[in-house]
Amino acid sequence: MCVWQRRQFSLLALFFQMIFLILFSLFCRYIDPLDDSKRIYSGTDYPLFQDVHLMIFVGFGFLMAFLKRYGFSAVSVNLLLSAFVIQWAMLLRGFLSKQFQETGTFTLGVPEMMCADNSCAVVLITMGVLLGRMTPVQFLLLAFFETSFSVLVDHIVFNILHVNDGGRSLVVHAFGAYFGLAAALVGKKKNVMEMDEQGSIHHSDLFSMIGTLLLWVFFPSFNAAVQEPEDARHRAIMNTYLAMASGTVTTFILSSLVDNLGRFNMIHIQSSTLSGGVAIGSAANAVLYPSHAVAVGICASFVSVIGHAWLSPKLEKRFKLYDTCGVHNLHGIPGILAGIFSIIFALGYEPESYGKTLYHIYPHFEGGPMNGERNREIQAVYQLAGMGVTLATAVVGGLMTGTLLLPGQADRRSADFQSDSSEMSQWVQHNWRFLEQELLERERLHEIY
Amino acid sequence: MCVWQRRQFSLLALFFQMIFLILFSLFCRYIDPLDDSKRIYSGTDYPLFQDVHLMIFVGFGFLMAFLKRYGFSAVSVNLLLSAFVIQWAMLLRGFLSKQFQETGTFTLGVPEMMCADNSCAVVLITMGVLLGRMTPVQFLLLAFFETSFSVLVDHIVFNILHVNDGGRSLVVHAFGAYFGLAAALVGKKKNVMEMDEQGSIHHSDLFSMIGTLLLWVFFPSFNAAVQEPEDARHRAIMNTYLAMASGTVTTFILSSLVDNLGRFNMIHIQSSTLSGGVAIGSAANAVLYPSHAVAVGICASFVSVIGHAWLSPKLEKRFKLYDTCGVHNLHGIPGILAGIFSIIFALGYEPESYGKTLYHIYPHFEGGPMNGERNREIQAVYQLAGMGVTLATAVVGGLMTGTLLLPGQADRRSADFQSDSSEMSQWVQHNWRFLEQELLERERLHEIY
Amino acid sequence: MCVWQRRQFSLLALFFQMIFLILFSLFCRYIDPLDDSKRIYSGTDYPLFQDVHLMIFVGFGFLMAFLKRYGFSAVSVNLLLSAFVIQWAMLLRGFLSKQFQETGTFTLGVPEMMCADNSCAVVLITMGVLLGRMTPVQFLLLAFFETSFSVLVDHIVFNILHVNDGGRSLVVHAFGAYFGLAAALVGKKKNVMEMDEQGSIHHSDLFSMIGTLLLWVFFPSFNAAVQEPEDARHRAIMNTYLAMASGTVTTFILSSLVDNLGRFNMIHIQSSTLSGGVAIGSAANAVLYPSHAVAVGICASFVSVIGHAWLSPKLEKRFKLYDTCGVHNLHGIPGILAGIFSIIFALGYEPESYGKTLYHIYPHFEGGPMNGERNREIQAVYQLAGMGVTLATAVVGGLMTGTLLLPGQADRRSADFQSDSSEMSQWVQHNWRFLEQELLERERLHEIY
Repeated sequence: MCVWQRRQFSLLALFFQMIFLILFSLFCRYIDPLDDSKRIYSGTDYPLFQDVHLMIFVGFGFLMAFLKRYGFSAVSVNLLLSAFVIQWAMLLRGFLSKQFQETGTFTLGVPEMMCADNSCAVVLITMGVLLGRMTPVQFLLLAFFETSFSVLVDHIVFNILHVNDGGRSLVVHAFGAYFGLAAALVGKKKNVMEMDEQGSIHHSDLFSMIGTLLLWVFFPSFNAAVQEPEDARHRAIMNTYLAMASGTVTTFILSSLVDNLGRFNMIHIQSSTLSGGVAIGSAANAVLYPSHAVAVGICASFVSVIGHAWLSPKLEKRFKLYDTCGVHNLHGIPGILAGIFSIIFALGYEPESYGKTLYHIYPHFEGGPMNGERNREIQAVYQLAGMGVTLATAVVGGLMTGTLLLPGQADRRSADFQSDSSEMSQWVQHNWRFLEQELLERERLHEIY
Repeated sequence: MCVWQRRQFSLLALFFQMIFLILFSLFCRYIDPLDDSKRIYSGTDYPLFQDVHLMIFVGFGFLMAFLKRYGFSAVSVNLLLSAFVIQWAMLLRGFLSKQFQETGTFTLGVPEMMCADNSCAVVLITMGVLLGRMTPVQFLLLAFFETSFSVLVDHIVFNILHVNDGGRSLVVHAFGAYFGLAAALVGKKKNVMEMDEQGSIHHSDLFSMIGTLLLWVFFPSFNAAVQEPEDARHRAIMNTYLAMASGTVTTFILSSLVDNLGRFNMIHIQSSTLSGGVAIGSAANAVLYPSHAVAVGICASFVSVIGHAWLSPKLEKRFKLYDTCGVHNLHGIPGILAGIFSIIFALGYEPESYGKTLYHIYPHFEGGPMNGERNREIQAVYQLAGMGVTLATAVVGGLMTGTLLLPGQADRRSADFQSDSSEMSQWVQHNWRFLEQELLERERLHEIY
Repeated sequence: MCVWQRRQFSLLALFFQMIFLILFSLFCRYIDPLDDSKRIYSGTDYPLFQDVHLMIFVGFGFLMAFLKRYGFSAVSVNLLLSAFVIQWAMLLRGFLSKQFQETGTFTLGVPEMMCADNSCAVVLITMGVLLGRMTPVQFLLLAFFETSFSVLVDHIVFNILHVNDGGRSLVVHAFGAYFGLAAALVGKKKNVMEMDEQGSIHHSDLFSMIGTLLLWVFFPSFNAAVQEPEDARHRAIMNTYLAMASGTVTTFILSSLVDNLGRFNMIHIQSSTLSGGVAIGSAANAVLYPSHAVAVGICASFVSVIGHAWLSPKLEKRFKLYDTCGVHNLHGIPGILAGIFSIIFALGYEPESYGKTLYHIYPHFEGGPMNGERNREIQAVYQLAGMGVTLATAVVGGLMTGTLLLPGQADRRSADFQSDSSEMSQWVQHNWRFLEQELLERERLHEIY
C-alpha cells in the first residue's frame, strides 16, 4: 500500500477536524449566561438527552456487533462516525438557523445536542446497511455527505413544510435506511461465496442483544425527546411504550409462524421487536388512544417480520441489494409506515382534541399563532409531501454518494480476486468474503429454540 | 411434531394479543390533555421510570444469561414475557381501579407504566426459578396466570390492607420467588445426570455481571420509584444505597468464609450482592437512621450467602426443589426479611418523626386524612397480615399454576428418555439435560480467585 | 496456605464493616424530614447521580474487563472496592464537615452520595494501574489508605485553597493515576516473560468497549454533576460533549498515524477517546467558547495517544513502571492537562463574563459574598497550588501505600519462582505470568482494521 493510502484516513479526518475547529471558533457561541430570559436549564431536558445519547453510542454500536469478525469494528466505527457527525451536524444546523442569518453566529444548548445525536442516528442506520463493505475513509466521507443531505431534509420538513414528524421516524429512520439502500444498490456485488470455516456466534448475538434491549428500553425517550408541551411528550412516551410491547409480542408470534418448525428467529428478535417504536414515531405525540398505539405496534412488526422472511431474500436475489443488518425491515418499511400513519392520524382525529397543544403538533393549523391556514386535509397533504421529500432526497443522495464512494466495486469484485492490484480494494474483498461467510453462518444458526 | 404443537405458541399468543387490543380499545384511555388539573407531567417521574425499565429489560435479562446454552433464550424470553405482562398488567390493574368502577374506563400515565414494569419483575423472578425447564408456551401461560394473581395481591396489600411495602419487596420479590418455587416443587425432577462436555463459561458470567451491576446501580430507583412525597423518596434512595454497599462487602466476606480455601464464589457475587436492596425494600421509605440501613444490608447478605451455601443444596436433596438461578436466596429469603423489617420499623420508630409524611407511609394511621385508627402495634399486625397474604397467595398460585403447566413431568422424566413419544416433552428433556450439565460445570468453575 | 492467610480477607473486611456500622450509628444521620428549609429534593440531582453511579459500577468495571483471564475478577473486585469506599468516604467526609465539628453528627443526602461515588472513581483508577498484581486483601487496604488521602486532598483543594476543579479532573483523575503509578513504582517487577498460549481476546475487548462507551456517554454528567448554578452546569455538559467529540475524532486520526500501516489500535480507542472529557474536567464549568472545548479535546487525545505509543513503553523499559490498563495516558497526563487548562482559563477570561456565577466557580474572587481578595492572577496561582498539592499527595501517598502493601515483591519475583514457599506470593506470581501473557497477546492483536 502506498503512503497516501495508508495515511488517507488520517489526513482526511485531520482536514475535517481542523475545519470544524475553525468554524466553531468563528461562528459558534454558548447561550449568554447573563441573559436570564434565554437561559436554557439543563435539568428539564438533560435526562431525556442522556437516554438518547446512550441509544446512539451503546445501543446502535452493539446492535451492529452481531458479526463475529466485525463486532469490534462496528462498535468503534460507530463511535468514530458519531463523534464526527456530532460536530458537523451542529455546525450545519447552526448555519441554517434564523439566528445565524440575523447575527452571524449561532448558539448551542441541550436541544442542539439532541439534534446532533439524531443526526448520528441517521448515519448509523445507513452504516448498518453497508457494514463490512466499506473502509473507514469511505465511511467518513459517507458521514460527511449524508449528514449534509440529512440536515437539509430536516430543515425542509420541519421549518418549511411544517410537518409533524415527532419521533423523527421519517427524517431519521426512513431517510437513513433508504439512503443506505440506494448506496448499496450502486455498490452491489455479484457472487455469494460459501466459506468453510465454522463457528458459533452465540456471544456475538448476546452482544447484539445489549444493543437491541437498550434501544428497546429508551425508544420512548427517543420519540419524546423533542416534544413539547408536556402533554405531547407524555403521549409520545406512552404511545411508544405500548407500540413496543404489542410489537414485540407480535414479532415472536410471526417469527414462530414463518418458521417451518415453529421456532423463533434471532434476527427477528434483534430487529423487528423495535419496529413498533419506529412506526409510531412520526405521530407518537398525536395518537390519542392507547389501542391505536397497540394496533400500530402490531402492524409494524407484521411488515417487519414479513420483510425479513420474504422481501429481503427477493431484493437480494433480484436486485443484488445486500443489507448487512436488515436495516430495511427495521428502519425502512416501518419508517414509511410511520409516515402513512402520520397522515391517517392527521386526517382522523378532531383537531379540538389537542387543545392548545394542536399548534405545537401542527404549527400551521388554522387559528394558531403562526397564522396558518391548514385544515386536516391540507395538513395530511403536507405530511405526504414531507414523506415524499424525505424519501426522494434519501434515494438521490444515496445514489450520488454510492456512485462517488463505491465506484465500480461490483465489477472489480466480480473479476478474479487475486489479480486485483489495488490493496485497498483487496481489503474490501477480503472483508467481503468474511462478511458473506458470517451472514451464511448466521442464517444457519438462526433458530434459538 | 404435529402442526398444533408447532403452531401452539403462535396461536395462543395471537389470541392473547387480540384480546388485549380489544380490551385496550374498549376500556383504556389517556389522561385528558385539556384537563390541566389531572395532567401528569412526564418530567418528574420519568427518569426514575427509565431506571426501572432498564432494570427489567436489560438487568433481569442478562442476570439470567449465565447459562452458556441459555443466554440468548433467557434474554429473549425475558423480552417476550415482559412485553406480554406489560399489557396484561395494565389492563388488570385498570379493571381493579376505582376509576373503572365509576366510569367504565380507566386512564394511563407514567405511574401506570411503573406498575406494569413492576409486574414484569414478578414474572421474571419466577422465570429465574424455572429457566431452562419450560417451553415458551408454558412460560406464556405462566405469565398470564401469575400476573393475575400478582395484581390481585397488589390490590389487597395496598388498597385493602394499606400495608407499607415501599420498594415492593413483598409483592414483587417474595411473591415472585415463592410462586416460582411452589411451581418448581410440582414440576420437580428426579435424577441429576453428569455430562461429559467441557467448556468455559467465562463470557457467560461476564454477561450475567452486566445484569447484576445494572440491578445494583438502579436498585435505589426501584425502591424509590413510587414513593412520595420527596422526603420519603429521598430516604428510600439513601437507605437502599447504604444497604447495597454494606451488603456487598458482607457478601464478599461470607463468600470467602464459606469456602475452604477462602476464595470468592461468583454465584454469590452475582446474586447475594443485591440482597441488601431487597431486604430494605419494604421499609426503604421508613428507615430513619443510616446505620439501620447498613445493618439491614449486613443481615440480608448474611442470610443470602448462607442460603446459597447450605439451604439450597438441602432443598435440592430433600425436596427435589431445583432453583435454576438461585432465586430463593436473592429474592425469596431477603423478601421475607424485608417483611419482617417492615414490622420491626413500624413498631420501633416514633410516628411523630415522619411529620406529615406519616400518612403517605401508613395511610390509615390515626389522625390522618383517611380517618384511620391504627397505632404502631395495629400497623405492625397489618404488615404481618400483608406478608401472610402475599406468601400464601404465592404458594397456592404457584402450586396451582405448576400443576396446570407441568403435569407429570417428574414421572415422565424419570422414565426412559428415548422411549418418550411426545416431541415437546423430548424438547424439555433435552433442555433439561443440558441445563444440569451447565449447572454442574458452573459449580466446578465457581471460584474466581 | 495457613488458616490466617485463607481467612485474612474475611477477617479484615469484617473488621472494617463492623467499624463502619458503629461509626454510622454514632455520627451519621439523615436530613430532618420535618425541616423543610434543609430538605434536599431528590428530583433535581438524582438523575445526574445515577449517570455517575452507572459510570462507576458498570463503566469502570467493564473498562477493566479487557484481560481475558481477569474480566470477571476486574468486574467483581471493582464492585467490592466501590461498596467499601462508598461507606468509608461518606464517613471521612462527614468527619471533616463543618456540621460535624459544630454538632458532633453529620447528615447525608444526594450530594454526599455523589461525593462518595467520586471517591470510588479515585480508587478504581488506581486499581487500573495495579490490576492483576494484587490480592483482594491488598486491594482492600489500598482502598482504605487511598480514600483517606484522597478525601484529605479534596478537603484541602476545595475548602481551604478554594480551587476550581469542577469535573474533579485533578482530585479524581490525576490523583488516582499518580497514586497508582507511585505504588506500582515500588512494587515493580523485573522480567517480562513470553508465554506460549494463544487466544483471541475479541470478546473481552467488546466487554471493555461497554465500559468505554458508558464512560463516554455519561462523561458530561460526571463533569456537570456537582456544578451550580444552572448555567455552570449547562456549560459543563456542553464543553464536555464537544471535547469528547473532537477528542474521539483526533484519537482515530493519531491512532492511524502512529501505526506503520495506518490501522487503528484498539487500546487507543478504548482509552484515548475518553481523554477529552478528563482534560476539560477542571474547567468544564468555566470554558466560555465552544471552540475552546473542541481545542482542549484535540490536545488531550494528542497527548494521550502519544503517551500510549511512545511514553508508556519508555517508562516500562527505563523505570520498570507497569501500568496494566494504561491509566497514565487516560487519567494521568490528561488530568495534569486539565490542571494547566484551568490555570489558562482562569487567567484568560474576563471575570465579568460569568456574572453572578463567578463566585460559584471561584468562591474567593474579589467582590463576592466570601469577601475574597483574589484577582485573575492570584486565582491562577491557587489553581497551580491545587495541582501541586494533589500531585504531591498522590505521589507520596502512593509510595507509602506501595511500600506498605507490596514489600519486596520485586525481589521475590526475580528469584526462582517455584522455590518460593509463600503460597500467597505464588498466587501473585502465577497471576503475574498470566497477566504478562495477556498483555503481550493483546499487543499482538491490537490492530482492528
